[in-house]
Amino acid sequence: MKRKPLILVTNDDGITAPGIRALIEVMNELGEVVVVAPDSPQSGMGHAVTVNSTLYLDEVKIDDGPQKEYKSNGTPVDCVKMAISEILEHKPDLIVSGINHGSNAAINVVYSGTMSAAVEGSIQGIPSIGFSLMDYRWDADFEPAKHFVRLIAKDVLQNHLPKGVALNVNIPKLPLKEIKGIKVGRQAKSNWEEEYDRRVNPHGRTYYWLTGKFVNYDSGTDTDLFALDNKYVSVVPVQHDLTAHNFIKEFKRLEK
Amino acid sequence: MKRKPLILVTNDDGITAPGIRALIEVMNELGEVVVVAPDSPQSGMGHAVTVNSTLYLDEVKIDDGPQKEYKSNGTPVDCVKMAISEILEHKPDLIVSGINHGSNAAINVVYSGTMSAAVEGSIQGIPSIGFSLMDYRWDADFEPAKHFVRLIAKDVLQNHLPKGVALNVNIPKLPLKEIKGIKVGRQAKSNWEEEYDRRVNPHGRTYYWLTGKFVNYDSGTDTDLFALDNKYVSVVPVQHDLTAHNFIKEFKRLEK
Repeated sequence: MKRKPLILVTNDDGITAPGIRALIEVMNELGEVVVVAPDSPQSGMGHAVTVNSTLYLDEVKIDDGPQKEYKSNGTPVDCVKMAISEILEHKPDLIVSGINHGSNAAINVVYSGTMSAAVEGSIQGIPSIGFSLMDYRWDADFEPAKHFVRLIAKDVLQNHLPKGVALNVNIPKLPLKEIKGIKVGRQAKSNWEEEYDRRVNPHGRTYYWLTGKFVNYDSGTDTDLFALDNKYVSVVPVQHDLTAHNFIKEFKRLEK
Repeated sequence: MKRKPLILVTNDDGITAPGIRALIEVMNELGEVVVVAPDSPQSGMGHAVTVNSTLYLDEVKIDDGPQKEYKSNGTPVDCVKMAISEILEHKPDLIVSGINHGSNAAINVVYSGTMSAAVEGSIQGIPSIGFSLMDYRWDADFEPAKHFVRLIAKDVLQNHLPKGVALNVNIPKLPLKEIKGIKVGRQAKSNWEEEYDRRVNPHGRTYYWLTGKFVNYDSGTDTDLFALDNKYVSVVPVQHDLTAHNFIKEFKRLEK
């Protein structure tokens, strides 16, 4: 008898976030689930790993599901590494990260702890998907998202993923019947224009909060932002080879 | 009269590291230098930004050079963002990050705070270079590295960089006369095999230190590791478009 697929679940909003609870629910339908996730929000952590301090890992029970769960004080990437090295008996068949509260489309992929966990999975040779819902609220409705999570996770369990590729899935904030389907495309060219919120603390010292305005520079119809704006779920294949291959030739001038 | 180029310097080893001091020395020859760097080591921070806590920025004087310097409690990427938004009067002509104590070749680029600062520069449309010396020691000899830093920074000030591309420069730990030159290539396929060091603290609680073994899976002669192994300085053009363009077609099956 074929064993059930082993699925590792993580996120960056923390192990008690409604988004990861929705993700666990769907994964329990598809396989044997182990959760290793941060004990507190880790948004914006990118591909950070904990080098200069110690890591903890504690088994926890959060709901009545059949999954095993562990919380860690590490980043999302730490969670994936520790799960593989310290908890799982063999490499998982699938890693899913999310469902993130808020967008990881366009340039957000670079800053995203959710997506970095998925990218770490792909570095380790494991099919990995990051899911995000375009709704920052804690009480966001994850029901429509769950439909697409199920569909895409099933496809990846069946067809696997090419080596070195993870999927970045973003889901519009819409009722299920208004979502038109899935569009596969590329990361839109975009940027955050920073506007720091400068304040003075009660002791007279200036401090800053990061704020900013998201700017889309891309008018392409094959981008993740175009898909989302047109009521589609966006899927972007993402790689950890950062080489700008098209430009290697140009820089050969430095070899002289 | 043409103004001197404005150069922003940052790193991930912290503002007092010998590597950034060497970098500042060379940049003072080439332009007007402003340093905004972390007040403590930020290795392994990847593309992390500080979202959930406050940021400080303090002017400091560390040596007798003409540069202006600020230290921050943020990550390398925070330093670049704050420099552009809060300190510099106009966008810099060049951002340089490093000189990192240790390699950022191959898969290390993904975890590297040094390189993420350079990539953030490229996101902001500024020619940006990360420099690393293959020597972890605090008292590493940065003199040979300075030669190549000067050469490559001058080239980039003159020729700029293609939009969306930063350079990842790694310098072998060798005397200048043993370094054979520069090789431009791609990020080698590689991985860290984690081996957590598991300990028990005085209160009986288990904790972990991240350790690991670097594994090169790539036998290509056009990689950064090949260049370094053969006594060359390695230059890899790096991009922040993470789309695996070659695989978009394959995933079109999800659109059905």
